This record gives sequence, C-alpha cells and structure tokens, in this order.
Amino acid sequence: MGEKARRVLVLHGPNLNWLGRREPHIYGVTTLGEINALISDKAKALGLEVDCFQSNHEGALIDAVQQADGRYECLIINPAAFTHYSIALRDALAAVSLPVIEVHLSNIYGREEFRRHSVIAPVVVGQISGFGVASYLLALEAAAILLRKGDGKK
Amino acid sequence: MGEKARRVLVLHGPNLNWLGRREPHIYGVTTLGEINALISDKAKALGLEVDCFQSNHEGALIDAVQQADGRYECLIINPAAFTHYSIALRDALAAVSLPVIEVHLSNIYGREEFRRHSVIAPVVVGQISGFGVASYLLALEAAAILLRKGDGKK
Amino acid sequence: MGEKARRVLVLHGPNLNWLGRREPHIYGVTTLGEINALISDKAKALGLEVDCFQSNHEGALIDAVQQADGRYECLIINPAAFTHYSIALRDALAAVSLPVIEVHLSNIYGREEFRRHSVIAPVVVGQISGFGVASYLLALEAAAILLRKGDGKK
Amino acid sequence: MGEKARRVLVLHGPNLNWLGRREPHIYGVTTLGEINALISDKAKALGLEVDCFQSNHEGALIDAVQQADGRYECLIINPAAFTHYSIALRDALAAVSLPVIEVHLSNIYGREEFRRHSVIAPVVVGQISGFGVASYLLALEAAAILLRKGDGKK
Amino acid sequence: MGEKARRVLVLHGPNLNWLGRREPHIYGVTTLGEINALISDKAKALGLEVDCFQSNHEGALIDAVQQADGRYECLIINPAAFTHYSIALRDALAAVSLPVIEVHLSNIYGREEFRRHSVIAPVVVGQISGFGVASYLLALEAAAILLRKGDGKK
Amino acid sequence: MGEKARRVLVLHGPNLNWLGRREPHIYGVTTLGEINALISDKAKALGLEVDCFQSNHEGALIDAVQQADGRYECLIINPAAFTHYSIALRDALAAVSLPVIEVHLSNIYGREEFRRHSVIAPVVVGQISGFGVASYLLALEAAAILLRKGDGKK
Amino acid sequence: MGEKARRVLVLHGPNLNWLGRREPHIYGVTTLGEINALISDKAKALGLEVDCFQSNHEGALIDAVQQADGRYECLIINPAAFTHYSIALRDALAAVSLPVIEVHLSNIYGREEFRRHSVIAPVVVGQISGFGVASYLLALEAAAILLRKGDGKK
Amino acid sequence: MGEKARRVLVLHGPNLNWLGRREPHIYGVTTLGEINALISDKAKALGLEVDCFQSNHEGALIDAVQQADGRYECLIINPAAFTHYSIALRDALAAVSLPVIEVHLSNIYGREEFRRHSVIAPVVVGQISGFGVASYLLALEAAAILLRKGDGKK
Amino acid sequence: MGEKARRVLVLHGPNLNWLGRREPHIYGVTTLGEINALISDKAKALGLEVDCFQSNHEGALIDAVQQADGRYECLIINPAAFTHYSIALRDALAAVSLPVIEVHLSNIYGREEFRRHSVIAPVVVGQISGFGVASYLLALEAAAILLRKGDGKK
Amino acid sequence: MGEKARRVLVLHGPNLNWLGRREPHIYGVTTLGEINALISDKAKALGLEVDCFQSNHEGALIDAVQQADGRYECLIINPAAFTHYSIALRDALAAVSLPVIEVHLSNIYGREEFRRHSVIAPVVVGQISGFGVASYLLALEAAAILLRKGDGKK
Amino acid sequence: MGEKARRVLVLHGPNLNWLGRREPHIYGVTTLGEINALISDKAKALGLEVDCFQSNHEGALIDAVQQADGRYECLIINPAAFTHYSIALRDALAAVSLPVIEVHLSNIYGREEFRRHSVIAPVVVGQISGFGVASYLLALEAAAILLRKGDGKK
Amino acid sequence: MGEKARRVLVLHGPNLNWLGRREPHIYGVTTLGEINALISDKAKALGLEVDCFQSNHEGALIDAVQQADGRYECLIINPAAFTHYSIALRDALAAVSLPVIEVHLSNIYGREEFRRHSVIAPVVVGQISGFGVASYLLALEAAAILLRKGDGKK
Repeated sequence: MGEKARRVLVLHGPNLNWLGRREPHIYGVTTLGEINALISDKAKALGLEVDCFQSNHEGALIDAVQQADGRYECLIINPAAFTHYSIALRDALAAVSLPVIEVHLSNIYGREEFRRHSVIAPVVVGQISGFGVASYLLALEAAAILLRKGDGKK
Repeated sequence: MGEKARRVLVLHGPNLNWLGRREPHIYGVTTLGEINALISDKAKALGLEVDCFQSNHEGALIDAVQQADGRYECLIINPAAFTHYSIALRDALAAVSLPVIEVHLSNIYGREEFRRHSVIAPVVVGQISGFGVASYLLALEAAAILLRKGDGKK
Repeated sequence: MGEKARRVLVLHGPNLNWLGRREPHIYGVTTLGEINALISDKAKALGLEVDCFQSNHEGALIDAVQQADGRYECLIINPAAFTHYSIALRDALAAVSLPVIEVHLSNIYGREEFRRHSVIAPVVVGQISGFGVASYLLALEAAAILLRKGDGKK
Repeated sequence: MGEKARRVLVLHGPNLNWLGRREPHIYGVTTLGEINALISDKAKALGLEVDCFQSNHEGALIDAVQQADGRYECLIINPAAFTHYSIALRDALAAVSLPVIEVHLSNIYGREEFRRHSVIAPVVVGQISGFGVASYLLALEAAAILLRKGDGKK
Repeated sequence: MGEKARRVLVLHGPNLNWLGRREPHIYGVTTLGEINALISDKAKALGLEVDCFQSNHEGALIDAVQQADGRYECLIINPAAFTHYSIALRDALAAVSLPVIEVHLSNIYGREEFRRHSVIAPVVVGQISGFGVASYLLALEAAAILLRKGDGKK
Repeated sequence: MGEKARRVLVLHGPNLNWLGRREPHIYGVTTLGEINALISDKAKALGLEVDCFQSNHEGALIDAVQQADGRYECLIINPAAFTHYSIALRDALAAVSLPVIEVHLSNIYGREEFRRHSVIAPVVVGQISGFGVASYLLALEAAAILLRKGDGKK
Repeated sequence: MGEKARRVLVLHGPNLNWLGRREPHIYGVTTLGEINALISDKAKALGLEVDCFQSNHEGALIDAVQQADGRYECLIINPAAFTHYSIALRDALAAVSLPVIEVHLSNIYGREEFRRHSVIAPVVVGQISGFGVASYLLALEAAAILLRKGDGKK
Repeated sequence: MGEKARRVLVLHGPNLNWLGRREPHIYGVTTLGEINALISDKAKALGLEVDCFQSNHEGALIDAVQQADGRYECLIINPAAFTHYSIALRDALAAVSLPVIEVHLSNIYGREEFRRHSVIAPVVVGQISGFGVASYLLALEAAAILLRKGDGKK
Repeated sequence: MGEKARRVLVLHGPNLNWLGRREPHIYGVTTLGEINALISDKAKALGLEVDCFQSNHEGALIDAVQQADGRYECLIINPAAFTHYSIALRDALAAVSLPVIEVHLSNIYGREEFRRHSVIAPVVVGQISGFGVASYLLALEAAAILLRKGDGKK
Repeated sequence: MGEKARRVLVLHGPNLNWLGRREPHIYGVTTLGEINALISDKAKALGLEVDCFQSNHEGALIDAVQQADGRYECLIINPAAFTHYSIALRDALAAVSLPVIEVHLSNIYGREEFRRHSVIAPVVVGQISGFGVASYLLALEAAAILLRKGDGKK
Repeated sequence: MGEKARRVLVLHGPNLNWLGRREPHIYGVTTLGEINALISDKAKALGLEVDCFQSNHEGALIDAVQQADGRYECLIINPAAFTHYSIALRDALAAVSLPVIEVHLSNIYGREEFRRHSVIAPVVVGQISGFGVASYLLALEAAAILLRKGDGKK
Repeated sequence: MGEKARRVLVLHGPNLNWLGRREPHIYGVTTLGEINALISDKAKALGLEVDCFQSNHEGALIDAVQQADGRYECLIINPAAFTHYSIALRDALAAVSLPVIEVHLSNIYGREEFRRHSVIAPVVVGQISGFGVASYLLALEAAAILLRKGDGKK
C-alpha cells in the first residue's frame, strides 16, 4: 500500500461540532477544534497521519466512509446519535475494507436505556467508551497496534 | 439580549413541503406556503418576528437548530416523521440554549402504533398536537407566554 | 344551539385539588382556585362561558362528562393520573358528542415511563402539555378556534 | 335457601347508561331502559326474579357485588371498560359465593388490542360476548341452567 | 334461500371425540355422542335442523367449513386446540358467507396463558365459553336469534 | 407539631371489609372489625393514637389520604387490588407530607404474576407483606420507630 | 437432468380454492381455475411445463413438496395462512433439493400484524407479494431466470 | 393388563420420512427405515414389542395417539416441527392414559430460537434430545424402566 | 397522461453504489453501473422509459420521490438500509400519487432479525426480494403490468 | 424441639460487610458490626437466641441455609444482590423446613428496574423492606410472632 | 487415549446434596449417596469408571469442569439451579474438550416459567430430563454410546 | 495518598485461566500467564505497579474488589461471563472508592444476544473491548491518564 499507508481517518457524528458549548458535565468543556488538535498531536507521536471530519448529515458520513476506502488504513468513528439507529452507516462501515474503531466520550452504558444499544458495534473491531477526549487518544493507540499487526481482523 | 430578542424560528420536518397536496383527511388542504403566511400574521399580532424553514434532510434541520442558537429566542418544530426516530435531531434540540415547542398537525396518539412514540418530546418544553394549522398558532401563543416569563424552563 | 352555545367545561382529574401545595418543581405554586380564576379571566377575554369541576373520583368525572353533553360545546380535561389507565373515562369521552381537548401541566413525555402512555389521547381532538397553567389557557384558545370553525372534528 | 332463591342480579358497568345514544354501529340503538325491560321479560319467562343496577363508579359496583351475596343466587355482569383493568372488581367477584356470568354486547376479541384482555374472565363461570342485547338474554338462560344444576361451579 | 333454510352445522375440533374419557374435572363426563344427542334435541325444540361433524384434521374442518357455505345458515364451532393457532381455519371461517358462533366447554380465560388467546374470535359473531355442554345449547339459542333477525352481522 | 402528634391513620383498600368471610387459606379468618381491634390494642401499647378507614372507592381513599395531611403523623395503607393499577392513589400518597407504610396480608410476590407489581411501592417508605394480620402490627412498630426518628424520609 | 427438466410445480395453500368467491377487495375476482389457466399460458410462453396443486391440508402439501423432489426443477408456493405458523411446511421446503419461490396475492406487510411474519421466507430463494394474480406470473419469470442460471442458490 | 402388555408405539412427526436424504450434518445419514430397524432390534433386546408410524399429517398423528390408548403401554414420539406449535397434538398426548417420552435427534436448544420452545414437553414424562438415532434407543431404555416401575407418572 | 406516460423511476438507497465491490456472497459481483444498464435494456424491451438515481442521503431520496410525482408513472425502489427505519422515506412514498414497488437483492427475511422488518412495505403495491439483479428486472415487469392495468392500486 | 428451640439465624448477603463505608444516602452509616449488635439486643429483648453470618459467596450462603435446618427455628435473610438472580439460593430456602423472612434495608421497589424483581420472595413467608436497620428488628418481631404461632406457614 | 480412557465425571449442582430430604413429589426419596451408588453400579455394568462430585459453589463446579479436561472422557452434569443463569458454568463446559451430557431429575419444561430456559443446553451434546434417578443412568448409557463412537461431536 | 499510590489491580473473571487453550478464533492463543507478563511490562513502561488476580469464584472476586479499596488507585476488570449477570460483583465495584475500567478481549456486541448486555458497565468509568490482549494494555494507558488527572470520575 506504500505511500498512502499509516493514514487514519477520524469521523465525528452529529452535534459533536457543538462540543464544549453545552452539557460539560457529560461531554466536557473541550471544543471539537481542541479535540482535533489533541488527536493530531497524539497521531504525530505515534507516527500516524490523521484527518478529521465532522458532519450532522448521515449521508455525508456514509460518503466519507466510502471515500476512505483505499485512502486510509484505519477508521475511527464516534457515531454519536447515529450509534443507535443508523443501519445505513453500519452497512457502510461493514462494506469498507479498512478496520473500524468505535469511540464514545461518555460511557453510553450508564445513560438512558435507548443509548445502551449500538447498531454500529457488531461491525467494528473494538469499542472504547467513557474516557472523554482520551477515548479518541486510546483509539489512536489501538489503531497503531492494529496497523503494526498488519491486519485489523478484516 | 437586546435587539435580536423576540425572534422565533419555525422548523418544518420532512414531507411537510407536500402539505395540501395529498391526504387532506389527515393533514388538511392548506399548503405550507399558506401555513407560513398564517404563522407570519399571527406572529406579527403577537409582536414576534418569525422565520420558517423546511427540509427533508435530517442534517439540514440539525444545522438549522444549531445556527438558531443565539439568533432566536424560541424554536417551534414540527419534526414530522423524524419525531419517531431521529435521536440526532433530539440531541441537537437538547443541546441548544433556547426553549423548544413540539407541534403536530394531527393527533399522533390516535394514529398507527409507531407514531405514538416521540423521541423528541422528552427534551422540549411542551407539545401541542391535533389542531391542524392551529397547532402552529397555539405554539406561537405559547412562545409569547414563555418569552414574557423570560425563561422557557432551560 | 342558540343560548347554551359557546360554553366550555373544564374538568380536573385526581389530586389536582392539591396543586400548589407540594412538588412545585413539577406542578408550580399556583393553587387550583387561582388556576380556575385565570381560566375564567381568559374565557371572558375569548367570549366563552366556562365552568370548572374537580374530582378524585373516576365515576364522578364520568358522570360529569355525560352530563356535559348538550349543555356545553367543548370539553377541556386534565385527566391527571387517570390519563394512564382509566378506559372508563376514555369511553365516556369517546361517547359524548362534543369535542374534547386533553391538557397536562407537565410534559408527561419527559417523566416516568408509565406516564408516557395516554389511554385518553386516541379519542380527543388534540393535546396540549408542558406549559404549566398556560396549558389550560392555550386549550381555551384552541376551544375558541374549534368553536369558530363550528366542528371540532366529531 | 327458600324464599330469596331464584333471584338474579344484573350489573351494568360504566357508560352503559349511555347505550342507544351513540355509536350504534357497535352497541346498537336500544337504550339501557329498553334492555332492562327485555331482561325483565326474559327472566319472567324463565321463572327468575331479576334486578338491574348500573353505575359509572367502580366502588359502587363493588359494593353492589358484596351486597348481592346472600340476596341473589346468580350474578350477571357486563363490566364494560372495567373488564380491562379493575382488579378490585375482579377480587369482589372472586370473593362472593354466588356464580358470576360475564356478558359483552360486542365481540371484544374483534376490537382494539387492549379490549381483548379481560381481568374479570378468570374468576367467572363463563362468558357470552358479541350478540348485542341477546348476550344478556342468553346469560339469563345460562343462569337458569346453572341454578337448575344447583351448583354454578363455586 | 327457501328449502335449505334454518339449517345449522356444528363443528367439533381435535380431541373432542375423546370427551368423557379423561379429565372430567375440566371437560365433564358426557361423551361426544351424548353431546350430539343433546344438541339434536335442543335444535328440534328450536325448530332448527342440525348436523354435527368432528375431526382431528385441520384440513378436514376447513373443507367442512367451505362445503357448509350455501348448505347451512349458521355455523357453530368449538375449535378446541385450533383456537390458538389455526389461522387457516380462521381464514376459512372469515371467507364463508354464513354467521359463525365460537363455543368452548371450559372458560379458556381461566386456564394456561396460551389458551387465553383465540385467533378465531376476531372473525366470529360471538363467543360462548365456560358452561360445559350448555355452551353448545346456548349457541343454538343464539343461532335461532340470529336467524330470526335474518342477518348474522355478515 | 404538638397536640396532633403521634397520630396514625390506617387505610384499608377494596374488598378488605370482606375479610374473614371467604378464602381464609389466603387471607385468614379474622374479620376487619377484629383486625381493627388488634390494631387499636397494639397502637395503645406503642403510645400511638390510631384511626382506621376502609373503602371500596378509589376516590374515597384519595380523599382520605389528602385529609390526613396535617392531621396524622404517619399513614399505613393496605391498598389491596389498587396496589396494582391505581396511579391516582399513588399520586395522592406521593403528594402528602407524611410518611407512608405499605402493608399486605399475603405475600404478593408468591401469587399471580399481575399481583407481583406494585405501583404504590416506589412512593412509600417501606413495605411489609406476608405476615397476615401481623403485617399491620409490624407496620405500627415501624411507624413508632419512624416517628421516634422524627423524619420518615420525606 | 434431461427429459424431466424445465418442470415447475405450483402449490396453493389453504382456502385458495375459495378465490374469487369472497373478499374480492383483497384477493380479486379471479377463481383458482382461471388463475391456473393464466399460469399455464404464461408457463408455455416461457417454455416451462407446469403443474398446479391446491390443498387445505398441511400434510398433503408437505407430501406434495417431498414428491416434487426429483420430478420438478422449481417450486412456486403460495402458503396462504400456513405462511405464518407451519414450521412443518418450512422444514419440508428446506429439505427438498429444488429452489423455492414464495408468492402472495396481497401485500402481507400491509395487513394485520400477525400476517407480517413468514416462517417460510427464511428458507426460500425469494418472495413476490402484492401483485394479485401477477405475483404468480412474475414468479414463473423468476423461475425461468433461476433455471437459466442453472442453480437456484441451493 | 395381560396380553397387550409391554407394547410400545414409536411415532415419527413430519419430514422424518426424509431422514438420511438431506442435511446429514444435522440429522445424520441413516434413513427412517434403518432407524426403525435399529429400534426394533433394541426393543427385542429389552423384551419389548414395538410398532413405528410416521406421518406428515398432524391429524393422522393425533388419530394414532388416540388409538394407542389401551393397545400400547408406552408412547415414544419425535414430534419434529409439531414440537413448536401443535397444541392439538399436545392435547392428544395429555389426554391418553399411557406415559409419553419426547425424543429429538438434534439438540433443539442449540438451534434457531423458535426451535427452543416445545409445546409438547409440559405433558410428557421426560425428554431425550441431541443423541441422533441413539435418542430413540435411550428412550426405549427409559420406557423399559418406566414399565418396570409400573407407573409412568400418570 | 399523454407524452410523459410509461416512464419509470428506479431509486437505489444507501451503499448500493458500492455493489460489486464487497460481500459478493450476499449482493453478487455486478456493479451498480452494470445493473443500471441491465435495467435500461429490460425497460426498452418492455417499452418503458427508465431513469435511475442512487443516494446515500435520506433527504435526497425523499426529494427525488417528491419530484417524481407527475413526471413518472411508476416508482421502483430498493431502500437498502432505510427499509428498516426511515419513516420519512415511507411518508414520502405514501404521499406521492404514483404506484411504488419495493425491491431487495437479497432475501431480507433470511438475514439478521433487524433486517426482517420493513417500515416501507405497508405503503407499497408489492415487494420482490431475493433474486439478486433479477429482482429489479421482475419489478420492471410488474411495473409494465400495473401500467397496462392503468391503476397501480392508488 | 426442646433445647435448640427459639433460635434464629440472620444471613447477610454480598457486600453487606461493606455497610456504613459508602453510599450512606442509600444504606445508612451503621456498620454491619453495629447492626449485628442491635439485632442481638433486640433478640434478647424478645427472648430469642440469634446468630449472624455474612458472605460474599453464594455457595457459602447456601451451605449456611442447609446447615441451619434442624439447628434454628427461623431464618432471616437479606439476600442483597442475590435477591435478583440467585435461583440456587432460592432453591435452598425453599428446601429447608424452617420459615424464612426476607429483609431489605432500602425500598427495592423504588430503585433501578432490575432491583424490583426478587427471585427469593415467592418462597419466603413474608418480606420487610425500606426501614433501614429497623427492617431487621421488625423481622425479629415477625419471627417471634411466627414462632409463637408455632407454624411459620410451612 | 490409552490408560485414562473410559472415565466419566458426574457433576451435581447446588442443593442436590439435599435430595431425598424434602419435596419428594418432585425429586423422589432417594438420597444423593444412594444415587451415586446406583450410578457406580450402572457404570461398572457398562465398563466405565465414574467419579461423582457435588457442590453448592458455582466456582467449585467450574474448577471441577476445567480439571476434568484430560482426565475424563465424558462429563455428565445436572446443573440444578445453575441451569438457568450460570453463563460462567456454560463457558467452562463450552471450553473443555470432552463431550457433555445435561441431566435433570424432573421435567424442567413442565415447571415454573423461569425453569424452562437452560443457558447450559446450547453447549452440550444432548439432554435427558424427567426420568428421576434414571435420568443419570440413561446418561451413562448415552456416554457409553458416545465413547463407542469415539467422537462426542466436539 | 503517598507511597501506595500509582498501584493498579487487574482482575480476571471466570474461565480466563483457560485462555490460549481453546477457541483461539475468539480469544487468541496467548495464555493468561503470557498476558499477565505483557501487562506487567506495559505497566512498568507507564510507571505503574500492577498486580493480577484470576478466579472462577464470584465471591472471591468480590472479596478482592473490597480488599483493593485503599491499597490500589485503579481497578481494571475483565468480568468475563459475570459481565452478564453478577449484580453482586457490580455492587462491589460500585461501592469501592477507586475508579474501575471494564475490559473485554472480544467485541461482546458482535456475539450472542445475551453477551451484548453488561450489568457491570453502568458503574465503571469506561469500557474497552474487542482488541484482544491489547484491550488490557489500552486499559493500562487509560488508567495512567485517569491517575494523571487525579480523579477517575468518582
């Protein structure tokens, strides 16, 4: 895969552009821009190239997933509200050939009943949730490990 | 909040641009344009400024909700079909700092089973349903009352 | 319908005589007497005659519904706890020939699971919930609109 | 049991005093007074004495059930809406020593889902539903048979 | 319909040929032959002609239902175990043009959970259950009433 | 709270006036009069004043609960059948300012499925069930302890 | 497979012999004989030999399925009411070596809840429903395509 | 019980005549004829007389169960697909006076969800599943033990 | 309807642009471009004009459905993942005046539990699933038949 | 039963050794040692001998229950978390010959959904919950009453 | 497999050490010691070596299962109450390399609802239930057959 | 907290001592000893002290959790099968004052239905699943971050 190798795409789902503006008791005070900067720093430290993309549009996220195929080696996604009902996003993630890691800022299993079910989880390699911004950084570590192993279980 | 105060945004969900064209036994014969005109008249009578926006795109409605924050004092939304599954829209409505009123033309509790559950309702101030076009006009009255009280329960 | 026309009956369900005494964070500090006075004022402003009746007895409310037929033109009811299980009250409301509007002080869809289901809702014209005392006043506005249209959807 | 023998009490549940006034496509056009007259005639023909009592009050029906014990030999009840949730009425019917027959004008198993479950049925001898006014008359026949057999399965 | 009028077909479902042989505490000690004789006597008293047919084969009962159309004026059926799952029998009963009465010896609503649901009930005129052999005799009375009224609600 | 202190109200729900007359294998042979006498004796021994009230009417029990506020220091209730569906009674108990103890003669968790769910339990201090008449006497002991502690957890 | 090749068996489930006689708003006015003729014509046009068989007996349909193995190349079945509960028929269809196509005259997903579940569907190649008699003709086209491809996905 | 004693009837449900022809990974390669021979040999070794009967017709199996009463001392049945829905077969097995043993070739609790529920199991003495053909042979051993004990728990 | 008549719109839902790239064991190896070509050829053979449109965006598909009204005579849709939750798409399909045919490449009733429920199905004329690319071609045949009949059941 | 009579065993389930260390708002500040001392004092006052045992091991509690048989006359148990799933503990309690009283510090019916179901309750004499440490003391009173009556309902 | 071959371990779950002491109508009067002796005799007759182990501790049973691997050729287990919830025991049984047979004294499918589900069954070769002590003896026969076949389906 | 600071306890639930011996397609080929070595190395690299403990006994794990309080600063647990039902373990984890991280080798949300629900998750800080042995190593990273932040959200 040569040149384009070691590249990771980080996808942020709906309303995550609103981070740091409200409900800091759940999602913290860091803005999405600051999170992306932290992700970027961590990626560099791990020898990875990273791009970040956020959208409130399910279709735009699906488009992004499809276009990532062949251009990135690993996909990290925080599907936010789409976690719970977007079978279309799930199908896109299941169809691409690169490994996917699911990330959540909060511990979704400690919240409302409907947030405890993920339609995305069955098609990802693994899931990291509840560590706030650190969830993304741990996911990058996981990506580095997966890429080192050269498989990603797909 | 000075100048920008007393402004209300009315959001219409998917297929409401189709109003008056079909199924008048459920939704009446008035078109969305006519409804918007009635809303505008009523708003004027109540001393409110109002803007209306319709979209069939969940993401576009979420974008509109986010952009309303700081530019409007109250949000009236008829989520239409998104009422029943768009957790992303719910999260957007829960995240903005302005009070939200949920509106339905028909009495959704007297229709098909799946229409009787609203994922939006738990995050709004109140809900008005079943009065046809008047549901919107009553919501404007409710908005005027909420704004007079200066809170909106947020 | 001549003389007796334009009359509205407001029914208050169980424990609403207790309003203003406890749980003001949910139901506010206004007493039922004060609410009835506000209802009366609003009715006058709208050119409606209004009577109010409260009971903790399901049977007394059913009797009142039946006796309202032919003596009032519209019925506004806050069924309180009966909302969730009184099929007998529902059958009474379904059987009378005047339009019914369901009112709730709190947003019942944002509370305990068992409060999110209304056995009354399928047989009313419309529902207004979550605006505190204003729910009743908006219902009077709705009644005025229904009576102006001369139908009430029955 | 001597003198008081051969006596049957017919109980009518909530809203049955409204019969013949509305929804004739479901409940027919006969009024409760006319039904009681038909019941009376049929009882005479069968050599039974019969009393009829209607109430919209659950408690009044329970009181009537208890007072029937020792004064009647058989109880026929159309619990109407109480069929579906009045466990208190069920307990009263289970506690008295006389046999109970459950009657419904309409075929409750062909109507809304929630009308297809009877909390009363498990404690009665038998059930007759769907024959309109004739349901009561058939129940009187059944009562005559039960009393002839001298048991009523209690 | 002239000559063939006033004819009633009584259908007995699976295992009813076993009546009187076992479980008399539930089904009584009378054999099916004796029941058919009692049915015959009662029919005569009511001025009806009656035929009885029993089968353990769902298909044979469906064939009998179809063949009854045009040859009988009313159908009385005790579907026994088929009550709870034979949608094929239900469809046959729904398709024929003559009124159907459902009969049960025992009070099925006081037995095991799975016996409390009838797939047959929604397509019949009415249901009589719990009176033992008398359930059939009451059904004949009901048939006589239906035929007198000349309709049977179909 | 001075003079009116140390007073306890005992409420008996529907059909409990029937105690001792039937089903002694479940509810024992003691009549309600005898139970009230035992309650009275026990109360005296504990230095409490006690009043007892029974009704088959849900509304009458709710009225009694409301009137107890300010006149009694503790409320003991055996809601009987209302345990399982009277949300109106629950709301009354939740609204009054005095502590409530729920009592059952039988172990409701060892009976029919529908008797294992109490809509009352979430709003009481504690529950005592299964000890027959002694359930009431233990509840009086519990009341004495609660009043000694001076709180009742409200 | 030589001579016996290109043969298709069409099975009609219970009550389909009644087609055209009742409920034409659901099933149309064409009789089964006429449908079989249309099937025959269409088969000829497609170069297929076709046999048709109808039964109200589940066992007879299972026998027919088993006997079709080795004698036909494709099986088209409208299981009618058996669609919803005949696991025995499903097992027969799963066991034979020829491809199966499921056909419904009406759109079963737009009807009663219990008609929306097919126990047959998981073991067939494909399903065609809602086109009336044309459902069968489209199934023949599908059969022709499957046979041309020489597999049938088994 | 003299001459007819020690006789066992083995019933095979629908599609078991197809054994050995398909899906050997679930049901093995032995045909029903071979299984019956193995059953016969085992029976002889145990001093039992045995008859075997297979049918795809529910009604035929019910007839066979009824006719077995008085002619056999024990009944072994593999209800196959009828395990999961034939309440009619269950009622027949519950009604006969001889002990019944339920047999399954495969471990039904390790297969599809719907195969994990047996409507037959509650009315049999015991169940043996998962041992392939040996399930029948173990059932014969069990029959021998039951007959030796002279009861069969009925 | 003159000139614009005989036109069919084929809509492909999310991820169908990915066809032929992955999971060929479920969806085959043909790309969407190739499928559209096959559709085009078949349409020509049937004398139909056809347009094809694919989108990963729910809103774009709804827009397309609305714009098809008046410009096409029939709509064929493979809703892909939206099949299972897009009530907005369902409402659009229910609102337009042209007949709709639902198509699936795979047999959705033989896959994961959540794929067996279609929120779209209740509002379409008919459904064809499981035949791979041929599902579309059969749908075109069905469209031709519907248009020939001149109705489409709307 | 002579010498060993009047002895009561109190069993504390998992994590109750942690009492008083954390979550005092739910479980109070008293430690298990202090509770055992209070239990001991109360027992003495009632003329009972008492032993207390706590374990985090389900098996150790079952062993203790079995060994109590014959050595104690009554068993008081706070099963803590085992309340909700330990069928093994339930079976042990059901098997021993001494009466069992179930105790809870908190009102389990006012907590999380999964804490509202007790698998233990159906096999005990009675249950006391919600009175904090006093729950144990009331249980000792109940034990004294049961032993006085000489039965314990077993 | 040489020397250690032909060895079978029989595991008894919680409360089975209590056998013969109580509830003989369900579990018989034989004690566990006597059962183990019968098992030993039967094993000898079949040429098997057998060891028996009972524990009330889930962990001890899991330890025993793990230690059996490599030391026994077959495992027979009566999981008793653990049947219904011990996923840990299930995982142990699934992980060891020797075949497992599940045994129950009573017919668990004829008892309380919660006893009809086995979390163990999906990972065993087969299940024998309802024959009392003979269930174990039949399981030994089954073990002998499995070992003869030399596989055990693992 | 001085000297004892920076210490982490890693708990392994039931059957994890069996790792590397079977089902490597799910759990990998690494043994628990090797995993503990990898954990130890990683801990050292992160400046943490670590102890590891495995048990098949629920009670032993609860004891270990309680004893960890005050001796460790962070707890990492792979509850294995206890994930799905051990409310006792959950209560222990909720009661201790140190932060807890839940770890799973496999992606539990992509396995059997019953493995998708964790009773542990609602009381932990966060969850990492699906990365095989790396799940533990990522959890150590997470622990290091939590300890650096000095809180752990408790």
